[in-house]
Amino acid sequence: MRCDLLVTARFLLPSPHEQVIENGALAITGDEIVDIGTADELLLNHQPSQRLERPSGLIIPGLINCHTHIPMVLFRGLADDIPLKRWLEEYIFPREAKLTPEIIALGTELACAEMIRSGTTAFVDMYFHEDKMAETASKIGLRGWYGEGLLDFPSPSFPDGYQALEATIEMAEKWKNHPLVEIAVAPHTPYTCSRDLLLKAGEIAQNMDALLLIHLSETAWEVQEIKSRFGKTPTEYLYNLGVLTEKTLAIHGVHLTESDINILAATGSSLCHCPESNLKLGSGICPVPELLSAGVNLCIGTDGAASNNDLDLFGEMDFAAKLPKGIHHDPAVVWAEQILDMSTTAAARALGRQDIGRLAKGCKADLAILDLHRPGLTPCFNPVSQIVYTAKGADVSDLIVAGKILLERHELTTIDQERLIHEIHQVVKGLV
Amino acid sequence: MRCDLLVTARFLLPSPHEQVIENGALAITGDEIVDIGTADELLLNHQPSQRLERPSGLIIPGLINCHTHIPMVLFRGLADDIPLKRWLEEYIFPREAKLTPEIIALGTELACAEMIRSGTTAFVDMYFHEDKMAETASKIGLRGWYGEGLLDFPSPSFPDGYQALEATIEMAEKWKNHPLVEIAVAPHTPYTCSRDLLLKAGEIAQNMDALLLIHLSETAWEVQEIKSRFGKTPTEYLYNLGVLTEKTLAIHGVHLTESDINILAATGSSLCHCPESNLKLGSGICPVPELLSAGVNLCIGTDGAASNNDLDLFGEMDFAAKLPKGIHHDPAVVWAEQILDMSTTAAARALGRQDIGRLAKGCKADLAILDLHRPGLTPCFNPVSQIVYTAKGADVSDLIVAGKILLERHELTTIDQERLIHEIHQVVKGLV
Repeated sequence: MRCDLLVTARFLLPSPHEQVIENGALAITGDEIVDIGTADELLLNHQPSQRLERPSGLIIPGLINCHTHIPMVLFRGLADDIPLKRWLEEYIFPREAKLTPEIIALGTELACAEMIRSGTTAFVDMYFHEDKMAETASKIGLRGWYGEGLLDFPSPSFPDGYQALEATIEMAEKWKNHPLVEIAVAPHTPYTCSRDLLLKAGEIAQNMDALLLIHLSETAWEVQEIKSRFGKTPTEYLYNLGVLTEKTLAIHGVHLTESDINILAATGSSLCHCPESNLKLGSGICPVPELLSAGVNLCIGTDGAASNNDLDLFGEMDFAAKLPKGIHHDPAVVWAEQILDMSTTAAARALGRQDIGRLAKGCKADLAILDLHRPGLTPCFNPVSQIVYTAKGADVSDLIVAGKILLERHELTTIDQERLIHEIHQVVKGLV
Repeated sequence: MRCDLLVTARFLLPSPHEQVIENGALAITGDEIVDIGTADELLLNHQPSQRLERPSGLIIPGLINCHTHIPMVLFRGLADDIPLKRWLEEYIFPREAKLTPEIIALGTELACAEMIRSGTTAFVDMYFHEDKMAETASKIGLRGWYGEGLLDFPSPSFPDGYQALEATIEMAEKWKNHPLVEIAVAPHTPYTCSRDLLLKAGEIAQNMDALLLIHLSETAWEVQEIKSRFGKTPTEYLYNLGVLTEKTLAIHGVHLTESDINILAATGSSLCHCPESNLKLGSGICPVPELLSAGVNLCIGTDGAASNNDLDLFGEMDFAAKLPKGIHHDPAVVWAEQILDMSTTAAARALGRQDIGRLAKGCKADLAILDLHRPGLTPCFNPVSQIVYTAKGADVSDLIVAGKILLERHELTTIDQERLIHEIHQVVKGLV
């Protein structure tokens, strides 16, 4: 059989829950995986137009970053180690007001370069000027979910949440047949959106059969605020409004009661854990073992790079795996497979997709290859352990999304990195 | 003036507490820094035999890893996510029993390759066959402190602690004039060394004017055990034995009372924080803000790679910086400069050295250069923030110890990486 691309490597990990295939191979045609197995089998059965041979490589499903504000890479390291309110009001908000679609496009390109280099094939974004972001990232070749932030007050792109919601509907129409773009409905938080805006957002998400994104219980302050306004926790409040469904991806969930956790489980909502951002901003620590025990679908995100300060999901997995062990004084309370699941198969589940987050016949060809031939990745007893506890983004040598090679031997194929870094240096001068 | 080597870069950070020098430069002769300033000044005043030009580089003091068991890289990822006792008894101890000096040398070489590639210029080790380790690492060119582990029972290298202590004295004599090797006295823990062995170790350390290394209050179990044996916390117990002095580097300090913290401060002992290992093994979290407030000299270590699973101090700094913020719900409870200090100047203070851990005239030429010309390190508003929150070991392009270049444009100069990785693959087969 003919195929477009045949990828071979020392190891192939189809999903966190499957056995590694030694001397594994994938055959790709168009944007899909058409066969998977050992290199011997596939070389016998397929005549590829192109081959990618990585004898010291480990092929893994492309990682999915379930929460980003990607243009915030422009504010990476601008200000750290200060209280959240001062950080937002003195540093972030004044600069966000200066963001134009052109700057957003440049920030998106920078974030895409970083994500591609660190093994991420898909991301879920909530920010402003999302249409520009979708245009930029899809041209580069990454898969994305784009939710224009809905707020009661003016955002950098819209005067109010209703107009941003209108724009969301238009974006969904505009991008409906694009293979790499999905539009989400993104009310910002329970405390920055009115009850009416939340209800409308929920309704429209349902009509569009779209993902609904919302920050939830990130800080103790938020919980107190919603309790004082409505006499309920933020989760109970959203549940009563009917906003929590199987198509909801709530973000953070740092401060949750047992009842909140049960609501998330019962409604089939997914929760995106952002451990590094939650620590760095002093928000607290998401109760991962309790959420897993209750059966909540947990995924992982980096949040914006300004509060992380990177978009590297390998670092995020490392934090996610180690934190609960230290907190619970139990090294067995979570294990590496569960954490990798959060960045792959559980993430895909949150997005309502069965064809990404794992490598199987019929799935989209979204994958990353780690180069194990490095002192820091030697020896390799267990590839899943190596991915979660040892590997870093920089160990990713190659990346493919929808069958297209976006990174080849550490070189970006769809981004001119030199020009990009030069332009970023110019544009940040105007943002300081 | 003539000098051996002139290094220039976009930024030079002399220490965490000083201003960055833009277009900075260092002049090196022999193993020392003979001048520091801007590139313009130094190029005018020095005629170097060799130049290292890194126009997108950030020169930083070489990082100091204050706690390692370096040959444990051989067990990296061998077993994770299981209780400590099972991990040690079923996986680690049976393999440590198989370690020969030859295998130790190979493991040391692998660890050195990883440390050099990730910006570490000096390390403090406690393990077995330390003499072989010193021989190997000093030949490679890294600076090291070597403490042969003292135990009441047989170690892989000695039948008991007293013989290991004898060997420590011999090692100190053998290596006394070596510029890169220092010998430490290393009683393993308060619970694996008898009172008499601890007293002798303290006495000999004092006679030798050597560093004394000891694991301290790593687990809740240890605290209970020592309390039940001696009616005191481990810190109180060691204090009463006279083991805690300015030359003591205690390791972990996860479970400390207020009184323990005051004892560490009053005796001038240093404490090595190993956040990733403490989390991953389920030991708990060291009370960093409390220790800093009390004035304890805090430094950072990775611990062995089997419980981390790497030797990358950039990752360790990231954990050390973020953890207290999340635990205390306060993003300002520690800041990036303090964390970088723990890996540089405070580490040097723990080792009783004023000539490493910072870059100044008369200091040893121990430094690392980060390549900032990467999407993930762009933009760069604040180099210290970039080092602690964003950079990874793989961003280190060059490394110099005692004036000698050990890494040049990501290539190891004193290790044959291909041969090494091949030999490691062979030797680990015999360890499984």
